[in-house]
Amino acid sequence: MVRIDNNQWRTVSLNAEGTKLRLIDQTRLPNELVWLELSELEDIWQAIKTLAVRGAPAIGVAAAGGLALAARRILALDFPEFYQKFCRCKAYLASARPTAVNLGWALERLKRTALENKERSLTEVKAALIAEANAIRDEDIECCRSIGENGQPLLADFQAVLTHCNAGQLAAVQYGTALAPLYLARERGQNLRVFVDETRPLLQGARLTAWELQQAGLDVTLICDNMAATVLARGWVDAVIVGADRIAANGDVANKIGTSGLAILARHFKRPFYVAAPGSTIDLDCRNGKNIVIEEREPEEVCELWYSQRMAPEGINVFNPAFDVTPAELISGIITERGVVYPPYPENLSAMFKVIGGSKKL
Amino acid sequence: MVRIDNNQWRTVSLNAEGTKLRLIDQTRLPNELVWLELSELEDIWQAIKTLAVRGAPAIGVAAAGGLALAARRILALDFPEFYQKFCRCKAYLASARPTAVNLGWALERLKRTALENKERSLTEVKAALIAEANAIRDEDIECCRSIGENGQPLLADFQAVLTHCNAGQLAAVQYGTALAPLYLARERGQNLRVFVDETRPLLQGARLTAWELQQAGLDVTLICDNMAATVLARGWVDAVIVGADRIAANGDVANKIGTSGLAILARHFKRPFYVAAPGSTIDLDCRNGKNIVIEEREPEEVCELWYSQRMAPEGINVFNPAFDVTPAELISGIITERGVVYPPYPENLSAMFKVIGGSKKL
Repeated sequence: MVRIDNNQWRTVSLNAEGTKLRLIDQTRLPNELVWLELSELEDIWQAIKTLAVRGAPAIGVAAAGGLALAARRILALDFPEFYQKFCRCKAYLASARPTAVNLGWALERLKRTALENKERSLTEVKAALIAEANAIRDEDIECCRSIGENGQPLLADFQAVLTHCNAGQLAAVQYGTALAPLYLARERGQNLRVFVDETRPLLQGARLTAWELQQAGLDVTLICDNMAATVLARGWVDAVIVGADRIAANGDVANKIGTSGLAILARHFKRPFYVAAPGSTIDLDCRNGKNIVIEEREPEEVCELWYSQRMAPEGINVFNPAFDVTPAELISGIITERGVVYPPYPENLSAMFKVIGGSKKL
Repeated sequence: MVRIDNNQWRTVSLNAEGTKLRLIDQTRLPNELVWLELSELEDIWQAIKTLAVRGAPAIGVAAAGGLALAARRILALDFPEFYQKFCRCKAYLASARPTAVNLGWALERLKRTALENKERSLTEVKAALIAEANAIRDEDIECCRSIGENGQPLLADFQAVLTHCNAGQLAAVQYGTALAPLYLARERGQNLRVFVDETRPLLQGARLTAWELQQAGLDVTLICDNMAATVLARGWVDAVIVGADRIAANGDVANKIGTSGLAILARHFKRPFYVAAPGSTIDLDCRNGKNIVIEEREPEEVCELWYSQRMAPEGINVFNPAFDVTPAELISGIITERGVVYPPYPENLSAMFKVIGGSKKL
């Protein structure tokens, strides 16, 4: 069994010298724990492209680190020449996953850093970029830790919770979002039992969440997605906690497919249903869930992926939405780094997150 | 793609000469359509054991056919010698799947036939056994057809339904139970669209239901179990229809894991939830679902089966119940061969199924 001895590991981070990006190759989990140490821009592009690193915050941190490393190696006589080459590297990295919002956001932030330092020496510009990449990483850790701090008291009296997909440390740098309150509970000596949905078709629950919770020493039980109703019916879990990909102004939450069904089950069995996510996922310009376009993915993910042979008839129609929308009225609370938002969401989300000055936090 | 041209096929049946048991090898579906023609007792035992034939009614028909074939080849001087050898064959077949109720029931029925004919010649006894095996098969077809007849009118105004697991022709001989109303709708020119849950962990929906509905020319769409809420939320299905493994006197239904969650979703989205099953699954001696013991199966089914490599960390706890119990209050109607039973179930199930004289029907 793979195991990380020190549970203070970070999913993705520049090394102390600022010469390499160190990250877990998530495509090899749960069977092998492989750390990649990358310095070539092409390798970092590849790691993002092939999902060796995945999860919005982790992608942002990887991209920022990758661009800072690439910048460090640019040979240029002056800032304009440097900046031209820097922008080429930035565009290249951005192409690895064009729809990942955090990727573009992190790269833009480094661009701003470069421009803000353009009067200084190139050595200083490069150092500032490394510092900014590290700042993005540290802010993510801090943000996740705050989500954990805000969420942990909600779980303090609970014996067991159920989670879906991977909104954990592997999707961020440390703690994760939905799993952060669980890690903090563990740090504080609470022995929470965690039921983990395997999360078809990509199995992020089985492959990633089960693995990282096991690493941290939590009491994990894996189930198939269709077993959640039984676990709830038996009274085995006190709450459901999930992450979010996007939160609309009215509190509707887009998250991994299967989330909305869980919310309905939680309501049926009178258990609280919490969403834990950073403020960066709250999109106040999106009025409600109806405005969120749901990505539909390839049938092969359902019929062929992972399997040693095809598991459904050739030519069968497949509906394979990657996300669903959980209506706000099914959500007991949204745990963020600034605090827990309760209904009515339109007012309370806006009160907590409107007027964020400056850069959007991870 | 495999395809059966004549959709009047039977999942399992003795051939016209009564010399071979002909059945689809379900372990090869959906990738290969392989018909087995078996005459050796050991091969039939193996087919039942390895799930080449599965589903309560189909197992009963296979066992009865297998025992009748074995009986035919018994060499004996008189009935006592014949009967001794017959009972040895019967015990051997019964050992293939000791907990399958229909297996034991079908074998007992043949034993009765043998005893009822013991004053006749051995040739006549053997012919009576073949006839009884064929009667069991024909009764199953008739029973499923009646379920279809009783259920089809309920679906007559619908555009689409959702089903779970395989309660189809592959689990019986023809028509199946939950799928019988769909086949009859098809026969009558109604173009029902059917959403099929893949049904983790054993994927009976993806492998079997999708295949047999596709064969019959229905408009099938496969989904992962956790996508059902989205399909319902979008208003794409008008009803949910599933089979049953056991129905308690109060109307609680034990069926494949995931069924109860679907029933909760159907209620949430105000869609009818129908159970279609033969009277033989109604157990009036079982007061309610709390008295139904739910089989828990091996973790490997969730973590390893089908996969080219292990898909969850070593040593992880897995909860893998094979069935769940859907409370009667979530069930809109129970479609049987005798008619549709509506709430209140305790009174109405008992009124329709108490005092069944003679043998329990398949």
